Amino acid sequence: MIAQRLVELSITLPPVFAPAGNYVGCVVDGDVVYVSGHGPVNGDELVIGKVGGDLSVEDGRRAARMTALSILATLQAELGDLDRIERILTVFGMVNVAPGFTDTPAVINGCSDVLVEIFGDAGRHARSAVGMAALPFDIAVEVELRAKLRPQS
Amino acid sequence: MIAQRLVELSITLPPVFAPAGNYVGCVVDGDVVYVSGHGPVNGDELVIGKVGGDLSVEDGRRAARMTALSILATLQAELGDLDRIERILTVFGMVNVAPGFTDTPAVINGCSDVLVEIFGDAGRHARSAVGMAALPFDIAVEVELRAKLRPQS
Amino acid sequence: MIAQRLVELSITLPPVFAPAGNYVGCVVDGDVVYVSGHGPVNGDELVIGKVGGDLSVEDGRRAARMTALSILATLQAELGDLDRIERILTVFGMVNVAPGFTDTPAVINGCSDVLVEIFGDAGRHARSAVGMAALPFDIAVEVELRAKLRPQS
Repeated sequence: MIAQRLVELSITLPPVFAPAGNYVGCVVDGDVVYVSGHGPVNGDELVIGKVGGDLSVEDGRRAARMTALSILATLQAELGDLDRIERILTVFGMVNVAPGFTDTPAVINGCSDVLVEIFGDAGRHARSAVGMAALPFDIAVEVELRAKLRPQS
Repeated sequence: MIAQRLVELSITLPPVFAPAGNYVGCVVDGDVVYVSGHGPVNGDELVIGKVGGDLSVEDGRRAARMTALSILATLQAELGDLDRIERILTVFGMVNVAPGFTDTPAVINGCSDVLVEIFGDAGRHARSAVGMAALPFDIAVEVELRAKLRPQS
Repeated sequence: MIAQRLVELSITLPPVFAPAGNYVGCVVDGDVVYVSGHGPVNGDELVIGKVGGDLSVEDGRRAARMTALSILATLQAELGDLDRIERILTVFGMVNVAPGFTDTPAVINGCSDVLVEIFGDAGRHARSAVGMAALPFDIAVEVELRAKLRPQS
C-alpha cells in the first residue's frame, strides 16, 4: 500500500497546488492519467531560480523531489488512492538552467529517485531531462508525468 | 455543434498550415489524435519575436490564440468535423521568451481560453506552459496538443 | 522486413545507450512504446555543442540522424524485432541552440528523414522541433519518440 510506504519513508504530501491558468491539474483518459506540469511548491514554499546559477545541483535535486511530491498530491486528490497507479509511464523533466549548466539528469533524478523509492519497479519510467530558457514564475524545475491506472474496483 | 459555436464566437479558422519538414500535421491512433507543434500563422500572417522583448504579454496571448485556431484548422481537415473531438486532453505550450520573461502561463492562456470558449468543459485540459530558447522561424509561440475522439459513426 | 531494409540502406544500429539516470530507455504500455529522450551517441562517439554556434545545420542534421538510430537500437533490444513497430506516432525533437539559431526543423529532419527511409509511410509522424537552452552533457540534439506496436504473434 502506497499510503503505508509514504509513512515508512517519512513523506508527507504537500497541499494540492491549484493550476496557475485556465487548465486542470490532471486529466484521466481511460487507464491513463496525464498530469499537468508541476513545480517545486509546498504550501507557501516555492523554489525559484536558475540551477547552476542561483541554485546548486543539490538544490535542484531537492526541487525535483518536491515537484514529484506535488504531482502525487494532485494524483491523490484526483484518484482518491495512490494504489490506483499501476505504473509511472513517463516523466518529462524541465530544469530552469543558468547559461552553461548541462547536468540536467542529476537534477531530475531527484524526481525519479523518489518515484522509485515510493513505487518500486512500478515507479521506473521513460524520461527526458532538459534545460529550459524559462519556467513559470522562475521556478527551478517543472515536471510533466503520465501514469497507467489499474481498473477501478 | 462546434461549427455553430464558431459562428457564435465570430471565429473563422485559418487555412491549414503545411508542415515545415518531413512530418505530418497530426496522427490519429484509435481514439486519440496527436497534433504536431503548431505556431501563430494565418495565411500570410505569422507572429514572430520574443515575448517580453519584441512582443508584449498581450501580443503573446493573441499569438497563442491564433495557434489554437491553426491547430483546429488541421483537426477540421483531418477529421472532417470538429464534433468528433470528445475532449482536449493535453496542451504543451511553448513560449519564445526574451531573457527574464517568466509569465508563460499568461501567454498560453490565449490558447487554453479559446479552447474552453469553443468546447466548454470538454476543452479543459492538462497543460504545461514553458519558455524556450528558440522556436522554428522565430515564431512567438508553439503548441502541441492531444485530443480524445468519439467513435466514428 | 526492417532488418533487410537496414541492410539495403547500409545502416548499422549503434550499441544500446544505457540511461544516464534513474530511468529506463523505454516503456511499453499495451500497444504503445514510449521512448526516453535519446541523443547523438554511437559507442564512444558523442556529438556535443550548440547548433548555429559550434555546429552547423548539417552537423545538427547528422546528429539528429544518429539520435534516431540510437532510439532504434533501444527499440530493437526491447522488442527483439523492429517489425513489431506498426507506426511511428510522434517525435519531440529538441535542438541545443546557439543564440539566434531558429532553423530547428532542418536539424530534426535528420531524424524524421531516416525514420521515413526505414519505415516508409509507417515512419511518418506528428512532430515538434524546438530550441532548448541546454541538453544533458551539452549534446547537440535530443529526441523523444512514441510508436504504435503490432500485437505480439
